[in-house]
Amino acid sequence: MTALKEVSSNRSFGGYQKVFSHDSKELGCQMNFAIYLPPQAEDGEVPVIYWLSGLTCTEQNFTTKSGVQRYASEHGIIIVVPDTSPRGCKIPGDDDSSDFGIGAGFYVDATQEPWNKNYRMFSYVTKELPEIINSNFAALEECQSIMGHSMGGHGALICALKNPGKYRSVSAFSAICNPIISKWGQKAFSGYLGSAESANWADWDATELVKGYSGPPLEILLDQGKADHNLTTELFPDNFISACKESQVPVILHMRDGYDHSYYYIASFIEEHIKHHATYLKA
Amino acid sequence: MTALKEVSSNRSFGGYQKVFSHDSKELGCQMNFAIYLPPQAEDGEVPVIYWLSGLTCTEQNFTTKSGVQRYASEHGIIIVVPDTSPRGCKIPGDDDSSDFGIGAGFYVDATQEPWNKNYRMFSYVTKELPEIINSNFAALEECQSIMGHSMGGHGALICALKNPGKYRSVSAFSAICNPIISKWGQKAFSGYLGSAESANWADWDATELVKGYSGPPLEILLDQGKADHNLTTELFPDNFISACKESQVPVILHMRDGYDHSYYYIASFIEEHIKHHATYLKA
Repeated sequence: MTALKEVSSNRSFGGYQKVFSHDSKELGCQMNFAIYLPPQAEDGEVPVIYWLSGLTCTEQNFTTKSGVQRYASEHGIIIVVPDTSPRGCKIPGDDDSSDFGIGAGFYVDATQEPWNKNYRMFSYVTKELPEIINSNFAALEECQSIMGHSMGGHGALICALKNPGKYRSVSAFSAICNPIISKWGQKAFSGYLGSAESANWADWDATELVKGYSGPPLEILLDQGKADHNLTTELFPDNFISACKESQVPVILHMRDGYDHSYYYIASFIEEHIKHHATYLKA
Repeated sequence: MTALKEVSSNRSFGGYQKVFSHDSKELGCQMNFAIYLPPQAEDGEVPVIYWLSGLTCTEQNFTTKSGVQRYASEHGIIIVVPDTSPRGCKIPGDDDSSDFGIGAGFYVDATQEPWNKNYRMFSYVTKELPEIINSNFAALEECQSIMGHSMGGHGALICALKNPGKYRSVSAFSAICNPIISKWGQKAFSGYLGSAESANWADWDATELVKGYSGPPLEILLDQGKADHNLTTELFPDNFISACKESQVPVILHMRDGYDHSYYYIASFIEEHIKHHATYLKA
């Protein structure tokens, strides 16, 4: 079993907000993750929601700013928040920009040198981390959902679409829904996966993936602020909605008047998302 | 009227979380404050709660981590969060330590050189800032309460006790209740006010002040985590409670099992405090 080291532990809404570090095999480095353990986890196994964060974030942003603990405590759900990239690998160029390398793993498994040894965030968040959670905490193994924000919204969508049946439900705030036509996505995919000509970018793009989705019913909830400066240049929720309709995958899109890309926006609506997931996690 | 410059504005729980900067006359420098404007403030004047933060904080800590916006929105209350000291004054020694100078104004009006020109946080938070809020926002002038955390809990208590009738209610998390016997308090009071022999420290100590309180009824709510590492060395809530009983001032003390000094603790109980204040602000 992977050895976990407790970095911090704070009582929160009757449960515990903790951070652990561990040596990741997939990523070849030491990683932190945050975990909220609701009071119900002291008496038995409970469902789990994975939260994937956006560019530049660590496990701290969602944990300190979203207010999720209140709702996780009410519904009796564990919340797991991984970091957004490998750390400390010292790959040349990994800290040159805020949208590639450190803090910007994009939840893919890189195929290109020098990134392919460490930048395997897809396998980390869908396989290694759930195994760690399931074997160390009071988590119901077959009962998990996934959500995220911006780059992490993209991550949540592709993790669910590429693993039919693995997650009961998926939701996203301000997701990069069609990365192969966004600047952030194109930069990340070129670097981690190779050029659009040589690599199958569509295999990591939610809008493309949903067109071929044939797994069990998956409840998708999208949330988007209308005052988000990235809306028309990076996110493209309309493309995803159209693709869902084409392929008859049920999806809900909430457009929020006046809300932006920040954690103030996320905090305002996180309760709705936790309720959405609770419906499917407790069905 | 003081010119306010909007630093940021984010939609939050149907209202707006904003930060403004302005030139403070009391402090002789440019200051930031955060203000949450609930949706009800668009239709008329609403009550105001001032939050005073602890050592090392700016206007950001409570604003990003407490989750207060949800409850301020529900109850229709403006929340104002000042910084914790003057900034940018470049007084020799003002950044030597985390418990004196920058980030550690202690909500007193300094009498000692070189601090007495700028370190006038008591006058700033009780006079200058309320005037700015009342003249620039939809604030009910005679309808305000005050609360805070740690150094800011001390601040909230002395602001209320030294200004009978000014605040409808006061509450504090992890307050430094008896600073003249705490290390933090003794260091701050020595520096800002002069030695215990030469200055009247009791005039800035909540436990001493409450013994002589003779103003209108003041509802005091104290909150304290039992796992707070500072509890027995810096905070001394029991001394304050005893003094309240002696002088027949009503006080409620909630001791919380397992909770520490952090914003995870504050977030867990901020709803109760906002409800407490709402009772008196809307009476």
